[in-house]
Order: sequence, then structure tokens, then C-alpha cells
Amino acid sequence: MNMYDLITRKKRGGALTNEEISALIAGYVAGKIPDYQMSALLMAIYFRGMTTAETAALTQAMAASGDRIDLSAIPGKKIDKHSTGGVGDKTTLIVSPIVAACGCCAPKMSGRGLGHTGGTIDKLESIPGFRTDLSAEEFCAIVRTCGLSLIGQAGTLARADKLLYALRDVTATVDSIPLIASSIMSKKLACGADAVLLDVKVGSGAFMKTPEDAYALAETMVAISQEANFPTAALITRMDEPLGCAVGNSLEVAEAVSVLRGTGPDDLRTVALSLAAEMLHLAGMGTRAACRARAAQAIADGTAFDALVRMTAAQGGDTAVLLDPARFPQARASRTVCAPTSGCLAHLDAETVGRAAVLLGAGRAAKGDAIDHAAGILLRRKCGGHITAGEPLATLYAADETLLDAGAERFSSAIEITDAPPPPSPLIYGTVDAEGRHDG
Amino acid sequence: MNMYDLITRKKRGGALTNEEISALIAGYVAGKIPDYQMSALLMAIYFRGMTTAETAALTQAMAASGDRIDLSAIPGKKIDKHSTGGVGDKTTLIVSPIVAACGCCAPKMSGRGLGHTGGTIDKLESIPGFRTDLSAEEFCAIVRTCGLSLIGQAGTLARADKLLYALRDVTATVDSIPLIASSIMSKKLACGADAVLLDVKVGSGAFMKTPEDAYALAETMVAISQEANFPTAALITRMDEPLGCAVGNSLEVAEAVSVLRGTGPDDLRTVALSLAAEMLHLAGMGTRAACRARAAQAIADGTAFDALVRMTAAQGGDTAVLLDPARFPQARASRTVCAPTSGCLAHLDAETVGRAAVLLGAGRAAKGDAIDHAAGILLRRKCGGHITAGEPLATLYAADETLLDAGAERFSSAIEITDAPPPPSPLIYGTVDAEGRHDG
Repeated sequence: MNMYDLITRKKRGGALTNEEISALIAGYVAGKIPDYQMSALLMAIYFRGMTTAETAALTQAMAASGDRIDLSAIPGKKIDKHSTGGVGDKTTLIVSPIVAACGCCAPKMSGRGLGHTGGTIDKLESIPGFRTDLSAEEFCAIVRTCGLSLIGQAGTLARADKLLYALRDVTATVDSIPLIASSIMSKKLACGADAVLLDVKVGSGAFMKTPEDAYALAETMVAISQEANFPTAALITRMDEPLGCAVGNSLEVAEAVSVLRGTGPDDLRTVALSLAAEMLHLAGMGTRAACRARAAQAIADGTAFDALVRMTAAQGGDTAVLLDPARFPQARASRTVCAPTSGCLAHLDAETVGRAAVLLGAGRAAKGDAIDHAAGILLRRKCGGHITAGEPLATLYAADETLLDAGAERFSSAIEITDAPPPPSPLIYGTVDAEGRHDG
Repeated sequence: MNMYDLITRKKRGGALTNEEISALIAGYVAGKIPDYQMSALLMAIYFRGMTTAETAALTQAMAASGDRIDLSAIPGKKIDKHSTGGVGDKTTLIVSPIVAACGCCAPKMSGRGLGHTGGTIDKLESIPGFRTDLSAEEFCAIVRTCGLSLIGQAGTLARADKLLYALRDVTATVDSIPLIASSIMSKKLACGADAVLLDVKVGSGAFMKTPEDAYALAETMVAISQEANFPTAALITRMDEPLGCAVGNSLEVAEAVSVLRGTGPDDLRTVALSLAAEMLHLAGMGTRAACRARAAQAIADGTAFDALVRMTAAQGGDTAVLLDPARFPQARASRTVCAPTSGCLAHLDAETVGRAAVLLGAGRAAKGDAIDHAAGILLRRKCGGHITAGEPLATLYAADETLLDAGAERFSSAIEITDAPPPPSPLIYGTVDAEGRHDG
């Protein structure tokens, strides 16, 4: 393999062979291919794309570039889940316990917050004592006993992806569908589950801004998975305003608990039930309708909440905050933001709300920054309804008034009030699976 | 300036400002911008191009990134020349002496052979004792006394170009017209001449394969020069078969001498006279027709040849080989390649002939390789005419039979014999200057 020739071929729109892609990834991980050649190739891929065969080969080469977790000794179907990232997206905390309560396993490696989007690991760490850095053995043991375990991403999995992502991040080559798809799927393949459900977010707060891009990403990931014989489906879900009402770590855990206890915001419950039903369907638990009923039952009978509590205890977390979320450490300062005018709350821009939450202390401005688990935003109103000037729209939580000033200013810029209601957009756009695209 | 933002903007088709380009080049030369970001930007430029303003800014920033030669103390117009590279292109050895003989100055920095193309410096070094590594002071002194001097490229000129070229060379980002144009023109601007004539080669042996690309490159370079107030014109000349009959260093010097003495191949003489006339025209020496007559006169009266001899003596070279080229050291082995069939010699692929010459020892397989100044090829026939099977087509020269085997095999693959003559293609396609494009 000659790197110059590979760059030239891709630059001219040609395809790389499986063998070339394997050698490329092996050579890069071994430090034999310099970053400056890899970044030129990545930019050529940004412009020229990759075929499904190339993307699948890249995915499998990256999955093979590090450790792979072996969950085969655990009985039952192990179903993984991945969200492309959003604001207020605490569905994993609801969905994984439901799947476990229904007799399947939900082992999952999650990430930390990135930019304006939150991360499940940060949310879990708002539970005092909760450990997310388990060994592979501890992880497997908890999946076996509790049906689920949620841990941080091991740096030893899909090593090539970790190296390539860091390079893409500084060379403006992140936003390429084959590169995004292979990055996600390489980690999923290395995680050892039997199948994965993808939640591809679309909208102003998501990485994919249009349904077309979201479908394209979902279809690429499903196509890769077929090449790897790895059952995969994707839901395309809305991320224009935050999902649910809570944005911020302990606030989101509390909201997930409320859904598991049968209450909580409608949009969050609907998306969570759809995701859980699709995961159970992937596990072969029956029709989508039957799986949905089963998921709803696991909420109604309390078994899903129990699964969350048991997993939390097994990972060292203080279950008292789950049983009574008022016991979460509280923010020292709070402020209510009110509607500046009357009208229809047409848009509450998810990315801007996410950035406001970061300013309040709920996220990181730079890698390694500490975060304030109590900081965040509780929405009092969601988009679509009529509001009156002076009516409370949200409560902001932070450690001090200075942070509240910054967060409130940013949050206010997320609000869009119009005379007429906006055209409705679907909460769930559709599904992509091995059979193709299913709208609605 | 944020490098990530610059890459993103270029990737999306936007333009960089003059200030951003200055900061980019200054930062890169200072080692503050890593190669992996620069190579991503270069690949984005390959796909998105650059505006004339961006290309001009890049050229001037690169010209300013190293030393600049000051020729202002030398009286008379100093006219530089640049060829984009070809096979058998020894025009500099003819043109520079003509310009000097006509009362202008022809100071020039030249390069070494690159790939299948030859370099003037290698050709000059076939003259025993000829020194091409003069100091700036020696260079200026010889220009002043002889009207011309030919030296190697100082590494301290246009430092950014040197660094960027090395990066482009390993990241498959060489073939971008704004990057080629700015690389050439930055060195020309730093060399201190009053004007430059560009010889843009087009054809199978040239970097630009089509007249459209050659015109585009020429127009870009002329446009850059206008922004820099640097008078520039370009000739677009054919490079499908080698120029003249000699390919190889001392063989080419001998052929240049034959043209300066009034003989030599028609195509070489025609191109050389056109280039010389254009340079004199750029120097304000009258109409093109008058300049062409004056150039022809400088050959006819021997003053151009005298200028070459004087410059050679001034640079330490043995003028005896110019006065009698039979005194050049001769190759130990030679072989005649004959026509395999009868027909029309339709094509004698310049790049393949150039590569055959490299195999014979006339060029370098790798940077720093020694070359055999006596090795090369003398064509007995040029394209377009009828040939008879068994008729000698060329004589190959090398140090031994093994090299001749390799060279002869490659040379034979350059030959294309057809029943009907090929459609004629012009030797000189046209001219580009500040007024635009002039065909024919």
C-alpha cells in the first residue's frame, strides 16, 4: 500500500479496496502513516465520499484495531443503543432499564457531553458514588445480574477510531457521513452486543440538520451493519427543541425517573417507548406493537424502575436519589426566565438551550473541565402552545448569579415567539432497518 | 486566525482574506501550524480552488517568506523566464544568451531535473567546472558583466513555498492550478527581475495535459502578476514529443550550441526564437516582429553564442566543450533503436522518452542520486513523417549495456506508428498577457 496512491485515487473519486483500507488503518495505528497524509485523505473522503463497501471495510478495520468485549457467555439477547447526540436526551436512562425488565440485556458504553450535547456518563455521575469506569469483568457481571450496565468508553476499544477522531476534530473533517457512520459503528461492533438500535437525531440541536442527512446517515450505518452481519435499525427522531423538560445532569436523571414511574413529559415518554420497543423488536421479542405494549407494561409494573435501581446499586451509586430525586444535591442559585411577549412559542432552539446549560455549568467549555451536576435548565413550556407575556418559560440553576446571567442571556436567545403557530414537525420521522426506510 | 475556521471556510467554498493568508503562511513557516492542518487545507483548496485575489495573496505571502534578491543596481531591463517543465527543453540555454546579446539582462535561477523532466542546472553541470552555486553577489556581478547568469535555486528564497511544496509532494496536492501558479510566481517575485516570461508546456510530456489547463494556469499566473504589478506574459507551447532531438544533459547543451550557431532542429529553434522575442517585447524592445528579427540577428551574428561562452567562463566552466561539443565526455555504450514497422511516426511520447532517459542515467530515480551527464537519447526522426521498418529512430547513450537494455525497452514503448499521419498540432498554441489570450 502506497499512501500517496491512495490519496490520489480517492481525490479522483475512485474507491479503495478492503485490503488497502485494512493496511491503512493498521499502518496509522502503528504510527507508520503520518497525520499529514491521513488528514489529506480524510479531506478527499469529505469531498468524494466512500462506497458502502469502503465504509464497511473502514468500520471493520477500526473495530479490529483495539480490544473487543466478549459478552457471549451472558445468556439472552444483548441489545446496544446509540444516540447521535442531542439536548435533554436522557432516553438511555429509561430505555436500558425497560429492555432489561423485559428479559433482554442492555449493555452499553456511553460518552460524556460534547459541545452543546449532553452525555450519559456525566448524567450518571450526578448520582453520588456511581462508578462508570468498571473493568470488562465487572461490566459483564453486572449485565448478567441486572440485565444492564452503563459504563464509559474504554480507550482500548476501536483504537483507530479514537486516533482518527482526534485528527478529524482539528482538521474540519468531522462532518462526513461515511466517517461519522464508520466511527459510530466501529465502536458498536467492538462492544460485543448482538444488535444495536441507533437514535439518529435531526434538527437544529442535532448534528444532522435535515431529515435527508439523518436518513442518509442511518442508511449508511444500517448498510455497514449488513456487511458485518450485525442486526441494526435506526429511528430518526426530532431534536429541534430539547427532549423533555430537563437539561442538565441530575435534573435529567430525575426526569428519567419520573418517566420510569409513569409520569414525565409526553415527548420524552413517546420517544423512549419507541426506542425500547424497537430494541425489543430487534431482540426478536415479537411485533413492534407487542414490544411497545411490553415496554409500557415494564413502566406500569415498576420493573423497569427496579432495574435502574438495581444497576445503580451494583455500580456503587446512592439509590436514595432515585427513590427521592429531591435528595439530589441542589444548585445554590436559580432564576426564572419569563416570556418577553405574548404569542405562540414557535421555537426553543435546542443547540442554544444546550449552550446555555454549558454556560450554567452543566457542560464543559474545554476537555477535562469539571462540571456542576446540579446546574441546568427546567423548561416550564414546550414549543407549539400559546404563551402570555411575563409567564415563566424556564427555571435556570447554577452555582452563582454570574453564571445565571450568562446562561439566562443565552437561553433568552433560544426563544422564538410568533403570531401564528409553526407547522407541526413529527417527533419520530421514521425507521431504517435491513428492509429499508419506513416513514412515520 | 483560527486554522480550523480557515479549513472549514475553504471546505465550504468560501474565500480567505489577505490577512488570513499572510497569517497562515507566517504561522506555517514559524512552525506554529501543524502539517496535518495545512495538508487538510491544501486538499480543500484542490477541490474548491482559490480566487485570483487569494492566489495573489498566497503568492505575495510566500515571496515575502524568505530572502529577496535585489537586482536594482544593475542597469537595463532584467527579464526572467520560467518553463513549467518538459523533455528536451533546453531553451533557457539559447534564450538567455539571445536576450543578453540584445542588450537586456537575463538573470535566472533554475532547477534540477524532476521526474521525467530535465533541469537546466543539471544540463549546465555537464560543462566541466561550471559552478551553479554562486553567492548573490557573484550572481549580480556576472549578470552585470555578461548580461546573464544561470544559477541554482537558493533555499532561502520563498521559504514557505519550499516547505509547502514538500508537503504537497507527499499529500497528492500538487496538481492544483492556484497552488502551482502561486508556487512558481512566489519564486519569480523573490528573484528580483523586472518581468518574467512563462513557457507553459502542454501535452503528454507536460504537467498540463490539455490546452485548457495550460491556458488556465497561464491566465492565473498572469492575473497574480497584475495584482503584484509584475509584468508577465506566457507562451503556451507543445510538449507531446521531446523538444528538439537531444534528451540528456551534455547532449542538450550541444544541441543548444548548434541552435546558437544557426543550425539545430526546427522546432527547438522556432520555440526558442518565440520565447526570446517575447522576453525582448516584455523588456520594451519594440514590436514582437521587431524583437523576433533582433533575436534572429543575435544568432546570425554570433553575439548570442558569445554571451553563452562568456557567462560559462565567468562561472568557471570549460568553454572548450561549447566551442567543440565533441570534446564533451562521451558515454561508454550506445545503441540504435530502429523502427519496428513502416508507417507514420504518429507519436513519440515525451514522458516515456524522458523516463527512458532517466533509466539510461540522465536523471535521478531518487533525490540526491548522481547523474551521468553523457547519458541520454538523440532522436534521428521526429513525429509526423513516414518511416520504414528497420530505419534508425534514435541513438541511446549510457554507461553500460544493462542500462541500455532498460532504456531501450522503455524508449520502444514511446513509439506509436500508424498508417495515416496524425492531425497536426501547433508548436505554439498562443500567448497570454495582461491584455488576455492571443491564440496561434
